[in-house]
Amino acid sequence: MRVPKALINLIESFQKLPGIGPKTAQRLGFYLLHVPEHELAEFGEYLKNLKKGTVLCSICKNVSEGDPCTICLDERRERNVLMVVEQPLDVLAFERSGKYKGLYHVLHGAISPLENIGPDEIYITPLIYRLTNGEKATVMEVIIATNPTMEGDATAMYLTKKLKEISSTLKVTRLGMGIPTGADLEYADDVTLTQAIEGRREL
Amino acid sequence: MRVPKALINLIESFQKLPGIGPKTAQRLGFYLLHVPEHELAEFGEYLKNLKKGTVLCSICKNVSEGDPCTICLDERRERNVLMVVEQPLDVLAFERSGKYKGLYHVLHGAISPLENIGPDEIYITPLIYRLTNGEKATVMEVIIATNPTMEGDATAMYLTKKLKEISSTLKVTRLGMGIPTGADLEYADDVTLTQAIEGRREL
Repeated sequence: MRVPKALINLIESFQKLPGIGPKTAQRLGFYLLHVPEHELAEFGEYLKNLKKGTVLCSICKNVSEGDPCTICLDERRERNVLMVVEQPLDVLAFERSGKYKGLYHVLHGAISPLENIGPDEIYITPLIYRLTNGEKATVMEVIIATNPTMEGDATAMYLTKKLKEISSTLKVTRLGMGIPTGADLEYADDVTLTQAIEGRREL
Repeated sequence: MRVPKALINLIESFQKLPGIGPKTAQRLGFYLLHVPEHELAEFGEYLKNLKKGTVLCSICKNVSEGDPCTICLDERRERNVLMVVEQPLDVLAFERSGKYKGLYHVLHGAISPLENIGPDEIYITPLIYRLTNGEKATVMEVIIATNPTMEGDATAMYLTKKLKEISSTLKVTRLGMGIPTGADLEYADDVTLTQAIEGRREL
């Protein structure tokens, strides 16, 4: 049986996605054969328009529709505390918990020597810029909320050192109790995230 | 945090796929933000062109690039045996095993009263047509290779009755030993599929 090229192309695209192996990709491809044409066209359009419809906020680097993002613009947010996370999905997780009212900074990764990702490959420089310029006088505490993994820990250590260098009065904390080690932040439940915010410890 | 509409649209499209829950859909959506624009456009095109690039073979109802499909056209295939399967992926599985050289017929489903799928909702009529017209004199045996599930069993029973009605000399068999009950045919390994072909029993 020769699988049609149109189907093979699609299966191969699915296979490039994280967590989708060859069997799942095949299943999804064949499944879509039964989906109405207009739904496929819609799905295709959404893929094509993804980048046009999203920007990175120039302040916090979170994924946003406009620049600056709604969180950076929101006057009700507490401006004296800044939480540093690895990914936009982590912001989403904290927002779902509803317990955090401060600002964010999204690094888009963590320091990982094994993968050749150094401090310059993630958005650490824009964070330092925020804390030495516009938000120098307002931010009193930086909560480091990187994942409790080797890479997240390395990033936290590097950031702590950097932040202590630029200000001796800045409080630098890290998420505490509650997050099981080795896990991924975005999968944590609301209670765990709340405990982690409350149990943060000074570095 | 307001997730950009462009991203929400895409996440919702992923969520409609079988086996992809809200968390996985979210992960895939955010992951694609890091994928180059041209790859997204390509993926989108593949989705849009899926139907244009595929047809159902008018003889065996398998998914194909041309009509009739390459298997129905292939003169080296044994024309005296016909295997009835539920899905195109099942054909792919048997072709991978390389042990079956006959023809196929794809039902695109199984009889399932609970889901309101009766004999007319799947391609049983075209199968009967094949066996009472063009292929009446050539096909000596029909191997029923529906899944060993309640729906597959019901379909096999229905087909056996129908086939015995149209011809008293037609040999009707079902895949035998080797397939673990309750499983999905497309996930079976080559050895299991080979055993199943060899151990088929007459109904």
